[in-house]
Amino acid sequence: MASSTELLPWQKRTQRYREAAAAKIPEAWRLRPEFTADLGPTSSKSVLDVPEKCGILTDRELDITTKYDAVALLEKLAKSELSSLDVTTAFCKRAAIAQQLTCCLTETFFDQGIERAKYCDEYLASHKKTLGPLHGLPISIKDSFNVKGIPSTIGFVSFLDHGPAKDDAALVKVLLAQGAVLYTKTNVPQSLMTGDSENNVFLRVLNPNKLLLGAGGSSGGEGALLAMKGSPIGVGTDIAGSIRIRAYVNGTFGLKPTTSRVPYGGQTGPGRAGAPGILPVAGPLARSLRDVDMFMKSILTYDCWTVDDAVISAPWRETSPPSKQLTIGYLIEDAKYPLHPPVLRTLKTAIAKLEAAGHKLVPLASQLPTPGLMADILESAFTGFAMDPAKTSMNNIHKSGEPVVASIPTATMPELKHFQPSVDDVFRLNVERRQFCTTFRDLYVRNGLDAVVMPMYAGTAVAHDNYGLAIYTVLANLLDYPAMTLPYLKADKQADFEYRRDVAYTPPYVPDEVEGAPCGIQLLGRPMRDEELV
Amino acid sequence: MASSTELLPWQKRTQRYREAAAAKIPEAWRLRPEFTADLGPTSSKSVLDVPEKCGILTDRELDITTKYDAVALLEKLAKSELSSLDVTTAFCKRAAIAQQLTCCLTETFFDQGIERAKYCDEYLASHKKTLGPLHGLPISIKDSFNVKGIPSTIGFVSFLDHGPAKDDAALVKVLLAQGAVLYTKTNVPQSLMTGDSENNVFLRVLNPNKLLLGAGGSSGGEGALLAMKGSPIGVGTDIAGSIRIRAYVNGTFGLKPTTSRVPYGGQTGPGRAGAPGILPVAGPLARSLRDVDMFMKSILTYDCWTVDDAVISAPWRETSPPSKQLTIGYLIEDAKYPLHPPVLRTLKTAIAKLEAAGHKLVPLASQLPTPGLMADILESAFTGFAMDPAKTSMNNIHKSGEPVVASIPTATMPELKHFQPSVDDVFRLNVERRQFCTTFRDLYVRNGLDAVVMPMYAGTAVAHDNYGLAIYTVLANLLDYPAMTLPYLKADKQADFEYRRDVAYTPPYVPDEVEGAPCGIQLLGRPMRDEELV
Repeated sequence: MASSTELLPWQKRTQRYREAAAAKIPEAWRLRPEFTADLGPTSSKSVLDVPEKCGILTDRELDITTKYDAVALLEKLAKSELSSLDVTTAFCKRAAIAQQLTCCLTETFFDQGIERAKYCDEYLASHKKTLGPLHGLPISIKDSFNVKGIPSTIGFVSFLDHGPAKDDAALVKVLLAQGAVLYTKTNVPQSLMTGDSENNVFLRVLNPNKLLLGAGGSSGGEGALLAMKGSPIGVGTDIAGSIRIRAYVNGTFGLKPTTSRVPYGGQTGPGRAGAPGILPVAGPLARSLRDVDMFMKSILTYDCWTVDDAVISAPWRETSPPSKQLTIGYLIEDAKYPLHPPVLRTLKTAIAKLEAAGHKLVPLASQLPTPGLMADILESAFTGFAMDPAKTSMNNIHKSGEPVVASIPTATMPELKHFQPSVDDVFRLNVERRQFCTTFRDLYVRNGLDAVVMPMYAGTAVAHDNYGLAIYTVLANLLDYPAMTLPYLKADKQADFEYRRDVAYTPPYVPDEVEGAPCGIQLLGRPMRDEELV
Repeated sequence: MASSTELLPWQKRTQRYREAAAAKIPEAWRLRPEFTADLGPTSSKSVLDVPEKCGILTDRELDITTKYDAVALLEKLAKSELSSLDVTTAFCKRAAIAQQLTCCLTETFFDQGIERAKYCDEYLASHKKTLGPLHGLPISIKDSFNVKGIPSTIGFVSFLDHGPAKDDAALVKVLLAQGAVLYTKTNVPQSLMTGDSENNVFLRVLNPNKLLLGAGGSSGGEGALLAMKGSPIGVGTDIAGSIRIRAYVNGTFGLKPTTSRVPYGGQTGPGRAGAPGILPVAGPLARSLRDVDMFMKSILTYDCWTVDDAVISAPWRETSPPSKQLTIGYLIEDAKYPLHPPVLRTLKTAIAKLEAAGHKLVPLASQLPTPGLMADILESAFTGFAMDPAKTSMNNIHKSGEPVVASIPTATMPELKHFQPSVDDVFRLNVERRQFCTTFRDLYVRNGLDAVVMPMYAGTAVAHDNYGLAIYTVLANLLDYPAMTLPYLKADKQADFEYRRDVAYTPPYVPDEVEGAPCGIQLLGRPMRDEELV
């Protein structure tokens, strides 16, 4: 940053804004200097153990924040074995710690959360029943979800002008109606369209596993907070991989449901309303698979259409336990984006394990109509994202005088730089998308697939501003298939050595840098069969 | 038509095509001249009674075609109390009669239908089980549904060049998989986008209730065939009211389901693929409400996504019987399109009856944000229909040299004549549509509505080429609400007299012309709550 003597107006404004945000963290929750020394985007430190070591959390609070998944917490809350006040306080404190280490939060409203928690406890005591299936549970949400009275800047300095949101987003209404406690919003990249969560209002999210690694985007903040156990379950959004990317690089579970199952309306968006083509979708990041299932069920037992008319009113179905012998297709890679050794090892290990467990594994690469299909899909999707002639998102950046963050040029296709969209393109992209959907449906039907295993990304989390394009995740958005990130294994240079190939890795593969970074696989389901996938 | 000495190439071609189609009707199924005299679009005759009188159908065939709805026929077919051969033969014969009177069919394939019926009978006899829930039932389909080996001209002379379809439409695959018998396709308007089913290939559909009245569109053919009892149940499509209009003007039940529940893919369309905005939808025209329910259930018990990836995989839910006291909103009219006296009487009678039956009726007009909301929605929807810069549908007409039919200029908005769509319009219309949806959702939520009663159209069926714009039906398409036509009452100039007002009726109200025409109401449900609506 420039020195304070030469601060530009937008810089002064955001600095004040950040200072005010930081001042909201109570004195007693602030880390001692020994824990905040040598942090920053070039540090190879892991900060995952700081909450345990820093002495801010009581033993009970450490227990609350580490020993349970959301389902277990909900059980204890419903039985009054834990109070919402205690649970919420513990997560507020841990989130405050996470913020000081990784810059994962935007707006905090711990006081409001604690007031709400007290209300939940009182309600349960006097009514002898819970407020709903999410009774008393603190839930963190991406900055884009409007909460009445709280700003939604989503990483644009110009959006500081908007002031506090006038209404709750649809999903916020549902979460509150089902009994949840909200206490913080989480950090995002400028424009929401890069895999590196940096912006000029709340600055850059660091990956708690290793600070020099990116925390993913859009909303690395949610992923980093989950990894720090500063939230039992979080809500993100996904138009090219956002939920899954940040779940992946931070080592948690993430579900991108089929579009329009979870209410999306009433958020602050980075671009122009009314975009044709791929729709964004809201979904959970969680510590366990059963938490993902619980979240979806809790939301879909509410009549969500009453708060968001874009929702498909279809209940979350109960499913029978999956068959012992599933048919699972797999896609290894697109030649333009070869998998880094740890990712290739993770995927091959997962495939071998699934096969050993009795499932039928079907290689799909040879069945694709063209070997470059995934790259074609990437191009089609990103052309769609560039369809606004008014370039609203870029204007939202330029309006305040703030600069474009470093990762934005890496997260768009250079060939689209001078793209002038036409109505013919709208028709063409819709037709292309339909054809891609038909290709994949044919793959599923011809092979009798229950699901497809594929990589999440060419690498693990990589150094900041290197994430680039989301080829392996945008596929599920274009097809509108539900897709999950399952954390599995970690980068290990020795074990990964034999998976090295003489190829041009994009982004570069730097074994020492990514050592220990979480790995995982992506599992694709069938549209509207989110239940079976989970 | 021009005399044969001066026929243009397209005229010669279509004349030969029609002669070949007519020649496929067996000699024994042809009407004696006394029944075909004085037919035509200016005749005030009803031809509903011709099948009974003409002597072509046996008493048993008259029974089969008149005494049962589809559910009853399916029960008898499953128990072998009726053979599919007998049922199919009866409906083929009756459809052939209907065609000679009203021009309601396009491609007939009675031989194929009868072969299929025999196969159904043999299957049941040897396997002691049915092929599926539609076992042995003849079903008629709109011309746009591709059937392998059969042309889909959909009213374009230029489409004669396409030859036979190479594959079955997705819904045709499902119908066959569920055991149905297909035997004929039904007539449509040129372009599919007018309320008058006339085209230069198969000519004009007449309303069997009164030949001088229009039979509705797109696919008046299906409606006229149903009214003639030439089909137990038919399948249409609806983007502005097509299923409901022709059900209405012919006096049958029709359901426009929520989009993408019934597979739509694999049809021959009039326009350009990939259009943004309102999607067309397939649904049933039927003799009874329980037939509508049976049809939806039969289709949705099939895993339709396997044949059409655009389908929302959500099962048809079993619903509990509706509450004895429903809350039903009602919308009477838009001031620009005042209701003809018979329609006003029908609607007011229906509202009074519903109120008398204990339901709560809520007038909605005063709650609309602007009194002209329905006209605004009409304009927004039709602007969306005009979004193709290539004007593909009009080019499909012009290619062959055929003229535009008379109703096309009446079914488009004059202000859109020189409309040059832009990408900004795509965004704008999407935003507008979302706002209209929010307005209606608010109406539903605020008033706790179970459904909304409204008119189907300003008039009853009217004289040919007068139908005009579908203001009262396109609303449900834009909102993507399920909507049903329920036949109720008939035009009766004496009873209607007191409902006359000094207003400019569009189209004109001509009491003598419409005397006896079927009336009905439209019932709007909630998206994806098609089950509750039915």
